Amino acid sequence: MKFATVTHQGALRFGLVEGDAIHLAAHGLTLKSVVAGDLAAIAQDLRSRPAIPLDAVQFAPVIPDPAQIFCAGLNYQHHRDETRPEHRKAYPEHPVIFMRFATSLCGHGAQIVKPRNSDVVDYEGELAVIIGKPGRYLTAQTAMDHVAGVACFNDVSMRDWQMKGEQWGPGKNFPTSGPFGPYMVTLDETGPLEELELRTLLDGEIMQRSKLDFLIFDIPTLIAYCSQFCELLPGDVIVTGTPGGVGFTRRPMVLLEPGKVVSVEIDNVGRLENSVIAQ
Amino acid sequence: MKFATVTHQGALRFGLVEGDAIHLAAHGLTLKSVVAGDLAAIAQDLRSRPAIPLDAVQFAPVIPDPAQIFCAGLNYQHHRDETRPEHRKAYPEHPVIFMRFATSLCGHGAQIVKPRNSDVVDYEGELAVIIGKPGRYLTAQTAMDHVAGVACFNDVSMRDWQMKGEQWGPGKNFPTSGPFGPYMVTLDETGPLEELELRTLLDGEIMQRSKLDFLIFDIPTLIAYCSQFCELLPGDVIVTGTPGGVGFTRRPMVLLEPGKVVSVEIDNVGRLENSVIAQ
Repeated sequence: MKFATVTHQGALRFGLVEGDAIHLAAHGLTLKSVVAGDLAAIAQDLRSRPAIPLDAVQFAPVIPDPAQIFCAGLNYQHHRDETRPEHRKAYPEHPVIFMRFATSLCGHGAQIVKPRNSDVVDYEGELAVIIGKPGRYLTAQTAMDHVAGVACFNDVSMRDWQMKGEQWGPGKNFPTSGPFGPYMVTLDETGPLEELELRTLLDGEIMQRSKLDFLIFDIPTLIAYCSQFCELLPGDVIVTGTPGGVGFTRRPMVLLEPGKVVSVEIDNVGRLENSVIAQ
Repeated sequence: MKFATVTHQGALRFGLVEGDAIHLAAHGLTLKSVVAGDLAAIAQDLRSRPAIPLDAVQFAPVIPDPAQIFCAGLNYQHHRDETRPEHRKAYPEHPVIFMRFATSLCGHGAQIVKPRNSDVVDYEGELAVIIGKPGRYLTAQTAMDHVAGVACFNDVSMRDWQMKGEQWGPGKNFPTSGPFGPYMVTLDETGPLEELELRTLLDGEIMQRSKLDFLIFDIPTLIAYCSQFCELLPGDVIVTGTPGGVGFTRRPMVLLEPGKVVSVEIDNVGRLENSVIAQ
């Protein structure tokens, strides 16, 4: 099942995506408000509602207002190596987690704004995990029971602001810097996550390509870790880290510039595409 | 004027505090929803409503659900020196900003929960600035026009979790780790902020004491800085940093343990007091 949040006739709605259409839920319902429930039953209910063509809606972030967005940093060895050449092959003891505000999110098809005060706007293709059932102090063994589904995420990073003050938040929270979508796919449709390949493309050229299996801290471990310091709530998002191949460590650097189109594709999960504009 | 958010008969309400009473606004109104407006006019309206004794309500966080909580780290020289002895007197080029989720907040009088998985729970008394008028790309010259008021904040830090993974977010987002209150005081009542003294007390003993004048990056500069990478929204909070005297750098360490009472006092702003319990 695929669930999306979209704008239709000026209102934010969620619905079930089937083929090229979406069955919209009643006004006022949100994906966050139902995501801890029985998604198969919700999908069955939605199928009885009229379907609207997807090209009549605009995608919003899958969950527009998560209470908590946890992002794993340096969670693929290749990306650690490219950003920390002095520490090549060092294996971290704990995940690195930083925070995003919901104000930084945008949907599939939205324009990423290159702000007037950053010249180092970089892509980071990632898999996002969406929490269904709330929980605290989870173990890796039970963590996946709390997952409602997954989606593509582009953890767009203003590298100059990320590096200004030792904590990365400023470079990870610019408006529109968190493309998230197009939809949430439930795990019965994705197959085993570790077998999926993630690709980030810039103007059609592959810049990042990795099996999710290459995550240093795997998805159950990340979920369990975040649940140690926060109660995970329905609609929370855990963004799992980006593989090697980001733009700012390339020579010459390859960055998000106005007019370019960046896509994050994950097998069985979807393709998240956004163009870049100048502010 | 002093505005607070409180729980009264099971409902979250905001109101105007005068003396030992609070004039509650109508159900459904929130301080966040009015904080960009004319606070003097709002106070005048509230004065015509009945007053409830403060001891009949429980304080909630001043703003229970800010979209964005920005925290300045290492923003007093004495605190930089005590935490980074190897870099004593190094003067930073940019503010260090990390993020808190609203899920970490609690009110004056609430209990700080020492979680079962941290043994290094520390206090950090700070001044919190509450944004009224929204804004982006502010300058220090105009930043104060966007301030609705200020409040006391205790940036309670699980030091073991703060240091696990180079990014501090995990140690700064435990539930109840952000006492915020008791109320927001408007700037006409505080006088010049730089002249105010902040004190943190543990069981009545002064642990931190500093004039706000000793901030490395002053309040207008912090506001302007945060507005460079996020649009500041009504109800957003900027927590401005803690002076020297935190507990984990003392020998022996002085930490928040069940049964202790911690207070953050700021001249003309108020006293935020919380006791600690074990989970």
